[in-house]
Amino acid sequence: MLTLVIADAELELVPKELWNAPDSKSYSKRRTKPLSSLLLDSNYLHHAIDAKYPGESKRRGRPDILHALLLTCQESILNKVGQLELFIHTREDKVIIVNRETRIPRSFNRFSGLIEDMFAKRKIQSGGVTLLEMIDSTLMDFIFSRGMKNVRVFSPTGKKSTVSEAVGDEIATTVVIGGFSEGDFRTKLDDLGKQYSIYPEELTIWTVAMEAICTYERLHGIMQ
Amino acid sequence: MLTLVIADAELELVPKELWNAPDSKSYSKRRTKPLSSLLLDSNYLHHAIDAKYPGESKRRGRPDILHALLLTCQESILNKVGQLELFIHTREDKVIIVNRETRIPRSFNRFSGLIEDMFAKRKIQSGGVTLLEMIDSTLMDFIFSRGMKNVRVFSPTGKKSTVSEAVGDEIATTVVIGGFSEGDFRTKLDDLGKQYSIYPEELTIWTVAMEAICTYERLHGIMQ
Repeated sequence: MLTLVIADAELELVPKELWNAPDSKSYSKRRTKPLSSLLLDSNYLHHAIDAKYPGESKRRGRPDILHALLLTCQESILNKVGQLELFIHTREDKVIIVNRETRIPRSFNRFSGLIEDMFAKRKIQSGGVTLLEMIDSTLMDFIFSRGMKNVRVFSPTGKKSTVSEAVGDEIATTVVIGGFSEGDFRTKLDDLGKQYSIYPEELTIWTVAMEAICTYERLHGIMQ
Repeated sequence: MLTLVIADAELELVPKELWNAPDSKSYSKRRTKPLSSLLLDSNYLHHAIDAKYPGESKRRGRPDILHALLLTCQESILNKVGQLELFIHTREDKVIIVNRETRIPRSFNRFSGLIEDMFAKRKIQSGGVTLLEMIDSTLMDFIFSRGMKNVRVFSPTGKKSTVSEAVGDEIATTVVIGGFSEGDFRTKLDDLGKQYSIYPEELTIWTVAMEAICTYERLHGIMQ
């Protein structure tokens, strides 16, 4: 089982202090929902974000990159054979537990609606199955409470390694990937385990996930 | 160089015969553009599609799955090292030539706008570089005119194979993947080369691309 933990993901509702921005009002109108139930999305709110949090509009409010990541993971062959577990820890110390059977909407607008629904209800269920669940937890508490083993952090500042070395050859492996488009982890990860850098340039989070997944599949003979 | 050819991709503008559907009018209003310049998108127009083309609303008008595919390919390490070429052939026998430097918008709405712009102008350029270009060609004419070698078709009805066997060990390899979410190729591919099936169940097009890309990277020592 490969456990993927997305850390410090930039997924949050529109913060109260942004509700009065002109951007926010037109976003709410376009989405036909109140701001209190909408995801922060820098594609629409980057002026509002930069006004309140200077320089953060590229990083904060990135449901788009989480959508690409979830499509990569949930549709992977590793997930289809039941050997992938996925958790998403957010900047606000919430953790989303993703059921392996959860089918991610291909449409970004539907995906946003689903995640907003989860923020409101804390759980998305269908036919008795919990597809998504959101709990309150720091990254460290979550990893330790689940007894995750062989934790390996993928980080641009880690030790230069092949992906095979970074994933390791243990059957039960935990790979931590940052859930943001630029900058560094907000959580202090020094106690978690070794840090590995698999490529000298910045990679998107779905590219890192794809490399980790394909490597695990090949190291364990699932695909070849 | 791995050449990826997406065949029979379900990417087209809203057909004229759908312009009078109620769905189409509200789609045009939401997008604030005339229907003649908008992509067919089954997420918004599935009633209109099913009314005119019964049963086709899941297949036709799928810019969403092409978006996921382009994000996977363009952000891959194989593309970053200059060893991936990508062409998208559509159901209307147009071929989109994707420059390796083209950065795909993360936002689906911006992506749709970019592709619509390309349908209008046939070329998207920036700083003297042609990022996207659309030409008229059948799949077969395109593949033969480019002198593509070692053409391998990935198809659910092909010979059961490992991905390594399907990709093959030649440096210059061409992999053809269907650009649709269900059903079969519309183009007759029998003359193209061997057909391979890498997994017994249906896979999304970005999952197939990710497997082909990661396999090529590993077969040629680009990643390990």
